Formats: sequence, structure tokens, C-alpha cells
Amino acid sequence: MSNRKQLKFGALIHGVGGNVTAWRHPEVPVDASVNFAFYKEQALTAEAGKFDLVFIADGLYINEKSIPHFLNRFEPITILSALAAATSHIGLVGTLSSSYSEPFTVARQFGSIDHISGGRSGWNVVTSPLEGSAKNYGKTEHPSHDERYKIAEEHLEVVRGLWDSWEDDAFIRNKETGVFFDPTKLHRLNHKGKYFSVEGPLNLARSKQGHPVIFQAGSSESGRNLAAKSADAVFSGADNIEEAKLFYKDVKDRTAAAGRSRDDIVILPGISPIIGRTQEEADAKYEQLAGLISIDIALQYLGRFFDHHDFSQYPLDEPFPDLGELGSNSFRGNTDKIKKTAKENNLTLRQVALDSAAPRSQFVGNPEKVAGLIQQWHEEGAADGFIIHAPVPSALKDFVELVVPILQERGIYRTDYEAKTLRGNLGLSIPANRYTAVELNS
Amino acid sequence: MSNRKQLKFGALIHGVGGNVTAWRHPEVPVDASVNFAFYKEQALTAEAGKFDLVFIADGLYINEKSIPHFLNRFEPITILSALAAATSHIGLVGTLSSSYSEPFTVARQFGSIDHISGGRSGWNVVTSPLEGSAKNYGKTEHPSHDERYKIAEEHLEVVRGLWDSWEDDAFIRNKETGVFFDPTKLHRLNHKGKYFSVEGPLNLARSKQGHPVIFQAGSSESGRNLAAKSADAVFSGADNIEEAKLFYKDVKDRTAAAGRSRDDIVILPGISPIIGRTQEEADAKYEQLAGLISIDIALQYLGRFFDHHDFSQYPLDEPFPDLGELGSNSFRGNTDKIKKTAKENNLTLRQVALDSAAPRSQFVGNPEKVAGLIQQWHEEGAADGFIIHAPVPSALKDFVELVVPILQERGIYRTDYEAKTLRGNLGLSIPANRYTAVELNS
Repeated sequence: MSNRKQLKFGALIHGVGGNVTAWRHPEVPVDASVNFAFYKEQALTAEAGKFDLVFIADGLYINEKSIPHFLNRFEPITILSALAAATSHIGLVGTLSSSYSEPFTVARQFGSIDHISGGRSGWNVVTSPLEGSAKNYGKTEHPSHDERYKIAEEHLEVVRGLWDSWEDDAFIRNKETGVFFDPTKLHRLNHKGKYFSVEGPLNLARSKQGHPVIFQAGSSESGRNLAAKSADAVFSGADNIEEAKLFYKDVKDRTAAAGRSRDDIVILPGISPIIGRTQEEADAKYEQLAGLISIDIALQYLGRFFDHHDFSQYPLDEPFPDLGELGSNSFRGNTDKIKKTAKENNLTLRQVALDSAAPRSQFVGNPEKVAGLIQQWHEEGAADGFIIHAPVPSALKDFVELVVPILQERGIYRTDYEAKTLRGNLGLSIPANRYTAVELNS
Repeated sequence: MSNRKQLKFGALIHGVGGNVTAWRHPEVPVDASVNFAFYKEQALTAEAGKFDLVFIADGLYINEKSIPHFLNRFEPITILSALAAATSHIGLVGTLSSSYSEPFTVARQFGSIDHISGGRSGWNVVTSPLEGSAKNYGKTEHPSHDERYKIAEEHLEVVRGLWDSWEDDAFIRNKETGVFFDPTKLHRLNHKGKYFSVEGPLNLARSKQGHPVIFQAGSSESGRNLAAKSADAVFSGADNIEEAKLFYKDVKDRTAAAGRSRDDIVILPGISPIIGRTQEEADAKYEQLAGLISIDIALQYLGRFFDHHDFSQYPLDEPFPDLGELGSNSFRGNTDKIKKTAKENNLTLRQVALDSAAPRSQFVGNPEKVAGLIQQWHEEGAADGFIIHAPVPSALKDFVELVVPILQERGIYRTDYEAKTLRGNLGLSIPANRYTAVELNS
């Protein structure tokens, strides 16, 4: 294992939190989701911990039942750009939907963040699970799960093509001769596909990264295949090490089958470590968080994955109900897993609901225990690193101040940034421009 | 005139410049259009001068003949967001096309910049004059000039509606009771129009400004009417004071006719002051800039307004050719004016071309002269203020250091910001939420 690449870390900055009740924790600023000072402080904490990246999630539809953070939050392109100016080393990755955006605009915006930040931007390509999104974008119908992934694949191909519009040495900018650029190194994409027609060229040069880093976060069959074919990194979910190892191996295998190296894709499960000076202190922190969740709130949260299905109609302490095809188009990866886990373990609705709404809990303990679990997951092939989703703001600080030094001492995590770009830090190469022959090193 | 509102200033930050040759000036960084340090420095200079705003222009189509700045520049949403983090008082206004964007995304992005910046964002609504834009957005046809303005009007109406999704006191956020928001203060737009169908609500609260400031920059009949009906501010072009007075009166009259107060719209012509310690020094600076432009370059630049018409086919020193309907769909305001001016003054093609490509020149002189002209335009009803388009980077610094103090001494320009928001500094009120009754003061 000594040749294994070092750990990579990201920080999911998520305002008032990823569940229904985190905002009620005494420590969470109630306006965190639209509080720039909060985002900046979290990003600087992650940067102090030499994290590879911050991650901003997103969604395009809300209703009265949406979780608090979703109701009122920063749009990713804007907050990533603002953080580019407020940080100097950390990568800036955010979600943008390929189902409800134009490739020309997406290529410009992530490309522009890459220029502003000196090569630190990344795009998490999502297909938008929420069916209501269509109604905010003038569409009569939300595309099916499979079609959304076909759209995503073509969208990403167009964006990558636009990023290659200019060869790296196209801009001559000689004041004496008056030659600003070499027109032979400017390329029109002329893409005409099933979903998109885009002529190009992009009005933006390639940046230091060549292409911003491409993330993928879907765990369905289509999501895994898109990742294997086209992504540089995967933000995965994983409740336990066995499941994480299966996912890890599966995506690496698919990546190799797609003709790429297993090292061309970085797999980063999301975890929510809760750290105390002692195990008891950590457990108490966990209980404080879990205690914020009532069964009513948990049922409502669970319903969100199933098109806002009303789960209050079922008895709480009988086996999880048979939902048939419900949940088959939205959050497919999540709903398949919820159904499967419930069936295999003969769980009640109460158990499933509370579990789905509960803070993820596999990394709770003192710094040595958490560091040990991280090292184990890494060494046993469950993860190349992790996206830390701090359940309360201080958990990120705890991780950086208490766990990171242990990992550094063990020689499995950097003590300083190796590179100026996100690609460089993640150990990913710079994609060659499709119009030139030579691949460059980051 | 003593009751007249004080002067307002904006700074157009425009990378390597608004013409074909400015980049060859010794002082211009050749990568200025994608150089964040350059943008930040210009914004901080403007902020030191207590400017109301910086302004970022945009376009959605390039080809080999485009001017250097257009080929490779920051996308406005990203650079404005980055500047939000790098500045603390100045407004952040940028262009985004209503012809090639989705209202839900536009509302989120400008709204989000408004939250990040604490109420300093503004949207310059443009309809995209360049016909090629359609090809980058999967459209077979670029809408006609009139239709683009109809789209713009509906687009803006939707965006404003989305900004009102949440009443200002909708978020209760009481940790004790667990009530995050009041659902009766959340409103769905349910817009179904000719061009857009958007259900809403927006996943973002109103910010301190209520609505980001709406700019309009078109000088055509449709542009003026859109401004009169819906804009808070106009970025106009004006070659001389008489023309500027006519435009000013016309737009104010139209605004009053639309049932609004004449003070509800702020008119800011763009000017490019060139300042020397003496008139001779200023003239020499002007000549250095003008000398960068050859007739070939000027013809090419002129052609850009007329769908890249090849003007090299005409004799240079004969009257400007009759172009018929050419230029009637693209840059309508500009081409009408070029044709009219050429005819009325019996200008040759050489004169028209050099004039169109030449740096704007009405404010060239020592600080007292430039301050005097500004005061005259302001007092005689030609402008509420100006957008300063520095022809070289140092011209903005000269303006701030040499002209601003004179205007401050004369009591016609602020010595410090009056308000925390762009609306407040521009003297504009906060739009009432359409779902509530009371209008607030900025």
C-alpha cells in the first residue's frame, strides 16, 4: 500500500444543513445558506486543512416541503466565483444541471471561474432528479432518468469541445506586429447532435487546467457509466465500508473498461465525521444532532425522495411498505437503495424514516478513531479520499485541527499543496486539446 | 440647479479595450480581459473614487474578425461574483442576454450576487445584437430586433416576479418552535406567457435591494421603451452634449408617460475621458491612442456593426456608401446613427471608419476642463452621471485622483457612500414586493 496515492479531501459547504433539522442546532447560523461570511469561513478552514476542494450542491425546484437549506441558498456559479476571490489554493466545485442549462453558458461560466481562480474550478454534472424542475424551465415534461443521462453525456461532450476552442498557444499578443492571435489555432466545434447544436468557438481560452475538473455524483447504472466514461471524480454516498468498496471497485472497473486508467478517476465518498476529545463526547454530539429529528420530520424527509409521497398514511412499526414503481424516476440511486435495505433487513417504516433523516454516523469518535477509519477505508480500496459534510460548522474545524495532523503524521496526507491547480492536487492530468497532439502534465 | 441630485459614476471594466487596437497601447496588460488582478485593481480604484458601480459588458458570439477583448474574456456572472468578494461598497452590474437565457437561472444568479454582496448587484438586460449568437444556442434563427425586445420584456417580468417569491418577513427561523418559514408568505409565480412558462417559487429570498438594479443599454425605439417601462438605469452612448440632452429628455419623458417618476430612472452616458496635467499632455495621450488605429483596422471595425460587411470594396475618400437595409437587425441603434451622421455631414468612408474606431474624445483635457464638462452635462440635463470607460487603465486612476476631488469640492459628488446598497447610492427606492402592500425606503 505504500505506493498508494495520498488522501484527498473536499468540504461540502451546505448552509443550514443537508437535513430537515440541522438548522435548529445551537451552533448553526440560521441564515447560513445565504451568508457569505459563513461560506468564506468554511472555505478558509478547509484551505487551512490543505483540502483539495470545496463543494457546492444545488437543486432547481422547491415547494413547501423542501428542506430548509434548499428553500433559500446561493446559486453555485456565483458563490464559487466569490470564493475564488476569497481563497488562494483550494478547488471550487459546484453542481450545475445538464438537463436545464445551455452548454455554451456552462462552458463559459466554469471556464471563467477557472481563469479567475488560476485553475481551481470543477463542474459536478447532475441531471436534476426533481421532476418539478421542468416547470421552472418552460418544459411540459421532465425527461426520464435514462434520457437525462443521454442529454448529460452529449452536453458534457459539447462543453469539453468548447473548452478546446483555442489551442494553448493561440494567443500571440505581439504589440509590435499587431498580431493578437493565430487564426489557425482557433477551432469551431460545429456540433450538431440529438439534443444540442452549438457552433462555437467559445469566447474564452483554455485555462491552466485545460478543462475544469468534471465531477459526477449519481450512483445509478447510468450515473456510474457516465462517470466511468467522462468524469475525473465521483462524489459518492456510502453508509459502510463494504458498500463503499463494492462501489469503488465497480466504478474503477467500468473506467478501465472504458479505456481509461483506474487512476484517471478519483472516488470521494461523502462522510459526516463527528469528533470529540473522547468517544463519549463524540457520542453526545451525535445524540444532540439526532435528537433534533422527530418522526414527523423524518417521514416528510423520506417522502422527498419519493415525489413527496405521504408516508404518514402507513403504520410506523410495521414493515416498510411496498411502493411499487414509486421513486423510479427521481433520486433513482437513493430510492433503490432505501427499498433494498428495508427489504433485506426487514426494517419498519419508523426505522427507515429515522435512518434516512439521521445524520450519517459511520465516523463518530475521538480523532484517532476517525483518522483510523479514514486510513482503513483508503487502504482497503473504499475511497481515494472523502468529501467532508460537517453536520455542524465546528465539525469541519475539529476535523482540520484534530484529524488532519494525525493523517499528516502518518504520511498519508499532504502537509502543503503540491500544485496550483485542482487537477494537480487531485493527481489528474491536463486533458490534451482535441485539436493538438501532445498531452501536457499538470 | 441646487436641488439637482449629485453625480453618479460607473466604471466600465473592459479588459484589453473596446476597440481593435487599444491592447497595443504600452500600458495595457495583453491578457487584461482574463486577468482577475486587473479587474480587481480597476474595481478598487473605482471604489476609492466612491463610484456607484462597475460595469461588465458581454457578447455571445465571436469569429475571426471580432475585436480582441471579445475573443477571450470573463463571463459577467462569474467576474461580478468574484468582485463582490473583493470589494465592499461598489455596485456590480453586468450584461446578460434575455434572448439566450432562462429567467429562473437569471433570477437566481443576479439575486445570489445581491446576497453575496449585501445588495450591490445589477443586471444590464440586453437582447444580443449578434445574429451568430443563435448558432451557439441551438436556434435556427436569431429573433428579429422587435421580437427580441418582446422576449426581453416578458423575461424581465418573470425575473422580477421570481424575485418576489418570498415576502421579506417570510423566514421566521425560530429554533425553539422549529418554524423555519411562514408558508403564507411564499408565492408561486405560475407565469405562462408567449415566450416563458415558469412556475416558481425561486429558491432564494429577496435581498436588501428587493430587486437588483435593472440596467438597459439599447438606444433604439424598442430599447428606449423597455427602459422607460422597466429599467432603473440606462447606460447610453453620447457623442456630444446636444445629442445627450435629446436622449435624456426623451427617455425621461417616456418614463413619465409610462406612469413613473422622472427620478425613477438614472441616465448614465458612457464617456472615455483622457486627462493630462495640461491640455497638451491630454492631447498627446489622445493622439497616442488614435495613432494605434490603421484604416484597415477601422474598416474592419465598422464592418462589425453591419454583419461583418466588407467595406474595403468601396473607395475611401468618396461619400459613405448607401447600404440600404444592411445593419437593420444588428446593432440597430448604432447603424442608424452611423448612416444618419454620414449623410447629414457628407462624410467619406474614411472619415466614418476612423471616427467609428477612434477613441471617444469629447472629454480630453486637464482635470479642470474635464470636471467642467461633466458639471455642464449634468447641470444642463444631459446626464445624471457617467459610465467611465477608461481608454487605458491609468485613465481611471487619473479620473479618480484628479477629477473626482474637483467635483467633490464643488459639492456635486459624494465624498463617501450614502448607502450600503447600489439602489441606495443611485437614489432609487426598493421595489415593493408584488404580494405585499407597503413600499420601503432604501
